[in-house]
Amino acid sequence: MVGSEVILLDFWPSMFGMRVRIALAEKGIEYDYKEQDLPDKSTLLLEMNPVHKKIPVLIHKGKPINESCIIVQYIDETWKDKSPLMPSDPYTRAQARFWADYVDKKVYDALTKSGTLKGEEQEKAKKEFIEILKVLEGQIGEKPYFMGESFGYADIALVTFYCWFYTFETLGNYSIEKECPKLIAWAKRCMQRESVSKTLPDSKKIYEFFMEMRSKLGL
Amino acid sequence: MVGSEVILLDFWPSMFGMRVRIALAEKGIEYDYKEQDLPDKSTLLLEMNPVHKKIPVLIHKGKPINESCIIVQYIDETWKDKSPLMPSDPYTRAQARFWADYVDKKVYDALTKSGTLKGEEQEKAKKEFIEILKVLEGQIGEKPYFMGESFGYADIALVTFYCWFYTFETLGNYSIEKECPKLIAWAKRCMQRESVSKTLPDSKKIYEFFMEMRSKLGL
Repeated sequence: MVGSEVILLDFWPSMFGMRVRIALAEKGIEYDYKEQDLPDKSTLLLEMNPVHKKIPVLIHKGKPINESCIIVQYIDETWKDKSPLMPSDPYTRAQARFWADYVDKKVYDALTKSGTLKGEEQEKAKKEFIEILKVLEGQIGEKPYFMGESFGYADIALVTFYCWFYTFETLGNYSIEKECPKLIAWAKRCMQRESVSKTLPDSKKIYEFFMEMRSKLGL
Repeated sequence: MVGSEVILLDFWPSMFGMRVRIALAEKGIEYDYKEQDLPDKSTLLLEMNPVHKKIPVLIHKGKPINESCIIVQYIDETWKDKSPLMPSDPYTRAQARFWADYVDKKVYDALTKSGTLKGEEQEKAKKEFIEILKVLEGQIGEKPYFMGESFGYADIALVTFYCWFYTFETLGNYSIEKECPKLIAWAKRCMQRESVSKTLPDSKKIYEFFMEMRSKLGL
């Protein structure tokens, strides 16, 4: 059933799946991309991620790896000879993990709320999301990337949300760039890398997808 | 201000702090333990973890590392010559990370709800918690530890909850051992290690702490 060396089970608008696609592109790894039909989950997906039943799943030599941040670390540790994604010293590596973890704990919920809640709740959600982004912007500071000169793990964790900004900015009627210009400058810097620009779908396509999904769900 | 080589900011009943204490004990690292007065947070804690403002914080040569699972990985990568906590091959390492992440996402909430909710909600919470433990028990299976013969990262992530079981079993009037005997056998196996048995406080002391805290908060 699993013929290729490397297979990715994914869904095109997923910011978590995009993380894996960027890491694979950075390493120059060829793989079989298998688009998953959600919510109608394939037998392969259920078999390869029986615990969470979620994409992305990387299947390497028939064995599954789950959870996007864990997959990115696995890719970095398995294909070591090109484009290191993790800092080499343990302290900086811990910092990279800290920021990726911060993104995982904070960004998804706050971003979606900023566009989908209404009235006062939405104003509060937008403020909270901007505060989270300002913390991240403060960490990037004047550096090209999160941990300094090299693009890596923490950048990958955050940058995939960038193509979703337009959707929630439009719905929430606000501008992230106005509040966090340095963060957007960092995102544009990341977009100069082929691994990122070829992975992230067009923002308007994401918006169309989201609006269609909402209308299908009757929201 | 930071004199010692290794300092731990912690709070004795914290299952997250205990993870770090077990890892330090496994490695035989001496450190200054600084008990934190929560919720009255020290200037040192706020300075060393300005983002989350939470214990545990490990301070190594004056530099802070935050988030218990990230600290345990840092300890393993920094003091490499004794008791490896991470599996050496990338695939097994990804699995260890997966299970530690599963514990982080599922166990704390489900455990506390099983003892603090009431009536039907509590029955549902108990069932959900047992289901989570059964997934973990299934992963351990007949092996001595999570990833096989060696005690490590995933074991550390879960075992610190063991000393809290009694509190929520008592409040929720149920027995985890009755439902998950193999999981409890694994916990008892972990308790045979000095690093674990000397770190985990007595279950009754945890219960007294919890009841006192509840009554202070007027619950």
